[in-house]
Amino acid sequence: MNAIEDLARLIKKLPGMGEKSALRLSYHLLKTDSTFNRALGERISTIQEKIHPCPICGSYTEDDICEFCSSDKRDRSLLMIVEESQDTVTINQAGIYNGLFHVLGGAINPLNGIGPDKLRIRELMERVDKGDFKEIIIATNPTEEGDTTALYIKRLLEEKNIPVTRLASGLPIGGDLGYADKTTLMRSLKSRIRL
Amino acid sequence: MNAIEDLARLIKKLPGMGEKSALRLSYHLLKTDSTFNRALGERISTIQEKIHPCPICGSYTEDDICEFCSSDKRDRSLLMIVEESQDTVTINQAGIYNGLFHVLGGAINPLNGIGPDKLRIRELMERVDKGDFKEIIIATNPTEEGDTTALYIKRLLEEKNIPVTRLASGLPIGGDLGYADKTTLMRSLKSRIRL
Repeated sequence: MNAIEDLARLIKKLPGMGEKSALRLSYHLLKTDSTFNRALGERISTIQEKIHPCPICGSYTEDDICEFCSSDKRDRSLLMIVEESQDTVTINQAGIYNGLFHVLGGAINPLNGIGPDKLRIRELMERVDKGDFKEIIIATNPTEEGDTTALYIKRLLEEKNIPVTRLASGLPIGGDLGYADKTTLMRSLKSRIRL
Repeated sequence: MNAIEDLARLIKKLPGMGEKSALRLSYHLLKTDSTFNRALGERISTIQEKIHPCPICGSYTEDDICEFCSSDKRDRSLLMIVEESQDTVTINQAGIYNGLFHVLGGAINPLNGIGPDKLRIRELMERVDKGDFKEIIIATNPTEEGDTTALYIKRLLEEKNIPVTRLASGLPIGGDLGYADKTTLMRSLKSRIRL
């Protein structure tokens, strides 16, 4: 195996990469500015050393506490529960929400062996007990796993006497929150329904 | 800009990457085995140091002379002219051709400032003069630039008294050789036409 095939073999393991697109990308990297390659290679090699989950909400950060949890400009009476850290970026960039986040680290998926214990649900309950939330918004993906997770969390939260809502449909069913456009996100937030 | 955004910014410069897919890939790299990241990062950083164009045919190789030019099992009376080095891999993997290659390094594209002098056409003429080719097969892409390049080379080769052919259509017009399937490639080779 030569160096190009070796590079393509690794690229092929990335999501959305087939054999030909991996090979094509490898040849592209052969032709680009070598400074770019060294910069990209270094970033990929070291990304996991630079970034860790925020101990409070679980979103990825370079700091001790993430930008959301450490901000004094966010509404601390609102808590939005999302599956993945990148969902906080999607929501935040849309500019439609100014409360706090809680990242579960996935959704309940018994077939893949992901039960509630694999998610940051215990941390969520502790936060809810300690915090002073007026509303908890569940923003799991509109998929079967996301629905199951939303219902599971809703039941756990029932005794806490805090209104629990969920992003309205309007999000395409079976889709993924990360690909929703700003308008769809905004509509789904505005018409969120009480569970 | 944090480390994730910084990584996504570089990934976005790769072909076929939009803003969201770059961010998604960055988050994927945060979750993968860190050994994989270091391996991929190292390969990307160093690929250009390991690979260089073959001094004879121009295809990428790690050796002094590429596997095609140094092989004693290939038909040295056949020469196939392709635009890019990866095209030699595509053709070779299809297992339909056993002659030599010549890589132009692109196609004539006056709008992008790529004239014949930017391609390895002078090297091609020198090879043809020195070699003993019974047929020269032009396998440039079936695009406007590929057609122009094929015609240009055909005219240059006219006085050499060697049959010049071109891969038959059957390749989707406006498409790219790298994405053709084996059957399409084989049909286009079998029904190649004399220019």
